[in-house]
Amino acid sequence: MSASLSEQALVHRSARGANNERLEFLGDAVVGLVVAELLYDRFPKVDEGVLTRMRAHLVCERGLAEVARTLKLGERLQLGPGELKSGGYRRDSILADALEALAAARYFESGWDACRAEVRSWFEHALGSLHTDDFGKDAKTRLQEWMQARALGLPEYELVDATGPEHAREFLVHCRAAAHSRQTEARGNSRKLAEARAAEAMITQLQADERKANPA
Amino acid sequence: MSASLSEQALVHRSARGANNERLEFLGDAVVGLVVAELLYDRFPKVDEGVLTRMRAHLVCERGLAEVARTLKLGERLQLGPGELKSGGYRRDSILADALEALAAARYFESGWDACRAEVRSWFEHALGSLHTDDFGKDAKTRLQEWMQARALGLPEYELVDATGPEHAREFLVHCRAAAHSRQTEARGNSRKLAEARAAEAMITQLQADERKANPA
Repeated sequence: MSASLSEQALVHRSARGANNERLEFLGDAVVGLVVAELLYDRFPKVDEGVLTRMRAHLVCERGLAEVARTLKLGERLQLGPGELKSGGYRRDSILADALEALAAARYFESGWDACRAEVRSWFEHALGSLHTDDFGKDAKTRLQEWMQARALGLPEYELVDATGPEHAREFLVHCRAAAHSRQTEARGNSRKLAEARAAEAMITQLQADERKANPA
Repeated sequence: MSASLSEQALVHRSARGANNERLEFLGDAVVGLVVAELLYDRFPKVDEGVLTRMRAHLVCERGLAEVARTLKLGERLQLGPGELKSGGYRRDSILADALEALAAARYFESGWDACRAEVRSWFEHALGSLHTDDFGKDAKTRLQEWMQARALGLPEYELVDATGPEHAREFLVHCRAAAHSRQTEARGNSRKLAEARAAEAMITQLQADERKANPA
């Protein structure tokens, strides 16, 4: 007899047999919609930019892995010998993928309404500690606060290029975080927009660096 | 009496009153899940990397705008005077956003099953002309073919840096498309992976350039 989809959702590609990779593709979208609707309901006055950042925070790899740990998915994962030895059941990426795959399995097994209710319950705790204020600030302010909290100095912005005709001008901006020797660049049809995008890219970059330096 | 959500979905932020921006946030996720499931069903043997690229192709701004045109959403859009004058009802971004917002409105008004069936029908035509072969190739091959088809020469890759200890090496690769004076960079824990990511970024960049040069 073939295993249930909920079991297959916990089979990492390093193990034998049918793994969870295709389910994870679908589950990413299941979780994405459930969390989007949850935020849409919970924050009726909040604009879509803030909702988008809140969602990214909840469904980032680390956020998903935390939910997976609460559900003790690590204990039920099926891994190949190599991943088993190197502690794959503790790894954020493997746990996050398994959680997403499980969401897809539930969708097929129980239908949308039951799946939606279950996936909502997974994020109730994380939602409780979410403050719209943290996500409402513009990217340059968030980057500055993030760097100052870590004594990394201030970011620098440089307008590198402006091209195109007057009515369709495109600005290219560099953002530098000297203490991290990181640089990002972004384009936009205003200097302000290009700077905001470069700041957003820098936040993503620095947060990834921090995660790499302090693995869970 | 307040307007229905399906009407609000067609109100651009340039117009007065309640607009479609929050609905578009949710609708992006609705469309994402419906299309993911459609591809999952339709291509049972195709791996998640290919499914991901197929989905990105179907739900990109231009793809969504094409569906919106088939549904004649442009004629029903509510725009402010400035957007009206500059032909906003023809613009890809405005049409794509309205389509996504409409998907969210249908979800609230008709429930998941009816919404899913309707959104599926929107993509049937585009799905018919989709060939898994086009999406199955690795990023370097796709970039090369794309550039050759446009007589843009070949992309160049350069290994710029390799950092970190032996067991956790990180490679930094630049990809250059000389004819376009474009450069992308990417990191990965193998040279091959970094090159593939830089190639993927270059495809995105060149396609965006092409769209900008030939607006619909």
